[in-house]
Amino acid sequence: MRIVLIGAGNVATHFGRKLMEVGEQVIQVFSRNRLKALQLAKELEAAATNDFAEINTDADLYILAVHDDAIGEIAAQLAENGITDKLIVHTSGATPMRVFEAASTLKRVGVFYPLQTFSKIRKPDFQKIPICIEARQEDDLTILLNLAHNLSNKVYHINDEQRASLHLAAVFVNNFTNHLFAIGEKIQTDSGLHFEMLLPLIHETVAKLTEGPPAVMQTGPAIRHDEATILRHLHLLSGQPTLQEIYQIMTKSIQQTL
Amino acid sequence: MRIVLIGAGNVATHFGRKLMEVGEQVIQVFSRNRLKALQLAKELEAAATNDFAEINTDADLYILAVHDDAIGEIAAQLAENGITDKLIVHTSGATPMRVFEAASTLKRVGVFYPLQTFSKIRKPDFQKIPICIEARQEDDLTILLNLAHNLSNKVYHINDEQRASLHLAAVFVNNFTNHLFAIGEKIQTDSGLHFEMLLPLIHETVAKLTEGPPAVMQTGPAIRHDEATILRHLHLLSGQPTLQEIYQIMTKSIQQTL
Repeated sequence: MRIVLIGAGNVATHFGRKLMEVGEQVIQVFSRNRLKALQLAKELEAAATNDFAEINTDADLYILAVHDDAIGEIAAQLAENGITDKLIVHTSGATPMRVFEAASTLKRVGVFYPLQTFSKIRKPDFQKIPICIEARQEDDLTILLNLAHNLSNKVYHINDEQRASLHLAAVFVNNFTNHLFAIGEKIQTDSGLHFEMLLPLIHETVAKLTEGPPAVMQTGPAIRHDEATILRHLHLLSGQPTLQEIYQIMTKSIQQTL
Repeated sequence: MRIVLIGAGNVATHFGRKLMEVGEQVIQVFSRNRLKALQLAKELEAAATNDFAEINTDADLYILAVHDDAIGEIAAQLAENGITDKLIVHTSGATPMRVFEAASTLKRVGVFYPLQTFSKIRKPDFQKIPICIEARQEDDLTILLNLAHNLSNKVYHINDEQRASLHLAAVFVNNFTNHLFAIGEKIQTDSGLHFEMLLPLIHETVAKLTEGPPAVMQTGPAIRHDEATILRHLHLLSGQPTLQEIYQIMTKSIQQTL
């Protein structure tokens, strides 16, 4: 497939590299940031532009790997450029299909959402990344399914509501979990200890997920209703009201049946 | 060393196995639950008892791997049995050294705290488990340091205050993190999706810890101040006030500087 990549951030970069690796052809990279467009385009042996009017109108697929806020606007721009009979997808977990409704002349729209957190440095193992797809038209769904299977072993066809829930779940298990790690680091540093001490425990916490459902595997003072330890911990968090609040609500939530 | 193991739960079991593996001699297992004492003792080729009066008075080391609440009482019992010149340690992260003060005739006391979550099923990689030790007397500290180095590559001499902080940090990165996974599972199940979809994301969340401090690596709607997504997520959690509270306080905490 001949693909135009809209965006040059982490998602666009990792998608572009993987597409190239599996033999798909990224023909052009668009980014408002000309330098970023040029850099990624060079790596992908593609053309680069930061001018909407110069976006290639003859690709098979347009992948909008941009900020959620920008998707509607860029889709409208593509429609304005006359790209109305080509397949256009966004890569956002948080954005419903109706984002494309503003550009009402677009008929072939869909979603190509990789459920992963991308960073500049780490090369993701794409084969293991769940790719969640959706398309307004049946034929396009087939096209996206085939493409997704080329990139990953885990392809899911899920609807808008499911994708929204999935994105919410991802916030809990990724963003909020990372913040708990940040809190752990702060507590360690405040008492003159290294965060690294906690890594074996963190690794085991995740490894245990293979043993059974996390709710069943819950341990610690909250589930034991160990009030003495809970009070001691809240006392240790004196002067840090937000951390006390987190401790209390997490403890309450653990003690409730989910 | 000739060791008496007080307790037959997960910590006692995994300690006992590892001690045997490295050639230390567990001579007796005590548990109030006679059957559990017998089971573990058999595995460790040790004697078993559920009678305080029968605890061997001539061991080099007594390891109290019991519930936090029971430590003081058992220490007092050992003192009453005349075991006052032997080294006695507990394995609790949450319990300060002063737990031994009730048994004032005990002079040689200490802590041998493995920073890990143990379960019946999984065999822990003991070499990687941080062991945090403390002792009232200098000589005993040396004994515990030597023993700990036989079991693990990661041995730390930390005081009561540090151990209390460490235990608190462990609650955040282990117990609370596991609860976030349980919430993720609930959200998935509620929308007809499998928890397993989230595993690659969870693995990456942890793998990224090698890249930089978690606070610096934070991603997601909270750190981006993406109010539209935050509101959509809170709406998705309608009717689940505790989860809404968790979402809000975690978002607020991420947006504050830790």
